[in-house]
Amino acid sequence: MQNFVFENPTRIIFGKGSIARIGQELKRFGSKALMVYGSGSIKKNGVYDQVVASLKEAQVPYVEFAGVRSNPFLSKVLEGIEIAKKEQVDVILAVGGGSVIDTAKTIACGVKADHDIWDFFTYKKPIRGALPILTILTISASASEMNPAAVMTKEETCQKFSIRSPFIQPKVSIMDPSVLSTLSDAYTAYSAADAVTHMLEGYFNNTEPAGVLQDRFVESLMRTLMETTEVCLKDPADYNARANFMWAATLGFNGLTTAGMGIVGYPAHMIEHSLSALYDVPHGAGLSIVLPAWMTWASRKNPAKFARLAREVFGVKIKDDMKAAARGISKLRAWFISIKTPVRLREASIPRKDIGKIAENAVMLAETWKLSGYTKEVITDILKLCR
Amino acid sequence: MQNFVFENPTRIIFGKGSIARIGQELKRFGSKALMVYGSGSIKKNGVYDQVVASLKEAQVPYVEFAGVRSNPFLSKVLEGIEIAKKEQVDVILAVGGGSVIDTAKTIACGVKADHDIWDFFTYKKPIRGALPILTILTISASASEMNPAAVMTKEETCQKFSIRSPFIQPKVSIMDPSVLSTLSDAYTAYSAADAVTHMLEGYFNNTEPAGVLQDRFVESLMRTLMETTEVCLKDPADYNARANFMWAATLGFNGLTTAGMGIVGYPAHMIEHSLSALYDVPHGAGLSIVLPAWMTWASRKNPAKFARLAREVFGVKIKDDMKAAARGISKLRAWFISIKTPVRLREASIPRKDIGKIAENAVMLAETWKLSGYTKEVITDILKLCR
Repeated sequence: MQNFVFENPTRIIFGKGSIARIGQELKRFGSKALMVYGSGSIKKNGVYDQVVASLKEAQVPYVEFAGVRSNPFLSKVLEGIEIAKKEQVDVILAVGGGSVIDTAKTIACGVKADHDIWDFFTYKKPIRGALPILTILTISASASEMNPAAVMTKEETCQKFSIRSPFIQPKVSIMDPSVLSTLSDAYTAYSAADAVTHMLEGYFNNTEPAGVLQDRFVESLMRTLMETTEVCLKDPADYNARANFMWAATLGFNGLTTAGMGIVGYPAHMIEHSLSALYDVPHGAGLSIVLPAWMTWASRKNPAKFARLAREVFGVKIKDDMKAAARGISKLRAWFISIKTPVRLREASIPRKDIGKIAENAVMLAETWKLSGYTKEVITDILKLCR
Repeated sequence: MQNFVFENPTRIIFGKGSIARIGQELKRFGSKALMVYGSGSIKKNGVYDQVVASLKEAQVPYVEFAGVRSNPFLSKVLEGIEIAKKEQVDVILAVGGGSVIDTAKTIACGVKADHDIWDFFTYKKPIRGALPILTILTISASASEMNPAAVMTKEETCQKFSIRSPFIQPKVSIMDPSVLSTLSDAYTAYSAADAVTHMLEGYFNNTEPAGVLQDRFVESLMRTLMETTEVCLKDPADYNARANFMWAATLGFNGLTTAGMGIVGYPAHMIEHSLSALYDVPHGAGLSIVLPAWMTWASRKNPAKFARLAREVFGVKIKDDMKAAARGISKLRAWFISIKTPVRLREASIPRKDIGKIAENAVMLAETWKLSGYTKEVITDILKLCR
């Protein structure tokens, strides 16, 4: 096991009815909130009303900041920072999924910056502070509710980059699985692909050969996510399946599965970010296209770990590692197809002739993330397998 | 999944060489420390020197408080509180295993109390504050380094009771697996029995029938603990085995495996506490005696979960639940025997004629912990199976 520091102080309040607690929790961290949310689904599913009722009961003044889109834009963050400053809020409340939470996180640290906040994303400037962030999770996939990361797209340059700092770790996240019951089948599937990819990137891309415990955790989480996704697609209101999915998605990317695993790379995310940035593909849909292709490419060099996944999660009995790995990858791809998340570029209306342009875009992030070996040529090879 | 709140803010600094960081960490929480430790093994294995060097380098003044024994006594805590007050320390540093950490925790909250601190253990008074606690772990089993609990024995009444409060959750715990290399085979085995029992109590004694993810975590942790224990007994200096053991023992009782599982009871611990209190048996040794007996007793009423453990962890193939459960329990007992931790009362020199007296002692804790159904007769029945 490699040396590590693990610290995850987010308070998770999980379960039916827990949104009613947001007012009291918020009061512990500030006196006026910026409430960040998306395109209004929270007004349809009742979450908005629950939040507002709790804030009013706790007498917490708040300003609304709506309209965050998925694959969120930096320009929206800049608007949010303006409002946060003008209204002198001292705490940020995100009500939504990863895009909303990441927008809230970027506003929270952006308020404290006196420079171009994109410098945080290119690692030119460190984050030195942020307003406290609380979240109410309404789409479960990113684990942003319990981690210190955020992803943002800069429209002008089509760059989808990320930040990471303990300052933007949420103080409190409220997770009520019953709000997921209104999630569409498509987004249920995209969420599953996203969550599965998070944990598999850590599983495959690390520098610790003997992380058996962490491997077992990932396998446990992945089995649980796959089983519960299938249940949710049959019965979107199955509370227990939504709850297990929700908690598994959080634990799969909150630092638990990578603690002790050394340096972890995220090459499938790196490539997918270009699909989202250039074509506005839902992140999870982009990942279900890229992940099996990346796995095919990577397993050709070193099939052992891919064979392990095949045997442990997909029940593959083949002894030869190379063949077992290939069978496992094809079973994962088949599973993505079964839950109706795309596995080919053309399913997301991305023309094959764009592969060069996508690789050029991806290489910018590979360099920022210091993912060595991911040249334009390598990324092109991987993209060619996305079909 | 049941509603839950999960919050575990302890900062874990894990790995070789990490003890050198204690001085800097301590400075964040106080200006003068009480350094609590045991009977001096830390002077033999070099931990003491590393701690002192780091404290001196960081210029943190400290007062030593040595001599904490295993199955620690309340009287020692009272001494510690006196010294902490007299010396006006503002932070507590525990260097040791569960007994030392639990003593440090009780001192930390005891300093703030103006009443008999045993009232905390009988739940007559709530804990309302504590000095910050940091730990350097030298025996891995209790998970006290990353949880809000402490166990203490009151000599006069032979009561081994516990407390639980977020105030006594350690701020920082430093875990260097290389310090475990000098641990005796006996204590390696007792630690394994302790850690395994923690997670199995949560696995069997909960109110959530559909906690599949948590079950898988426990099974992953248990397999890892068993494998690594065997490696450590063959080669006490195997760093990677010690590291995996250490982290698994922490994760097995830091709240992760029980979050969402409803109300969790600890009947094997409840009965074992009486063995420790009355006969000063090492806690882990007491647990390896009580746990299989309790499992035998409990599985007779409801064998399904015991059969699951048998199949998932011990590879039992029997279809009938009752028979599979019995086979699994006998495999667990055989494993305890193989690592040389006792499974019978007489191996710990406890006479069978004392069973009534032990049950009378245990019933006090069953009442305090509100473990319904554990009458003197029931506890007697379980103790009769400890042979």
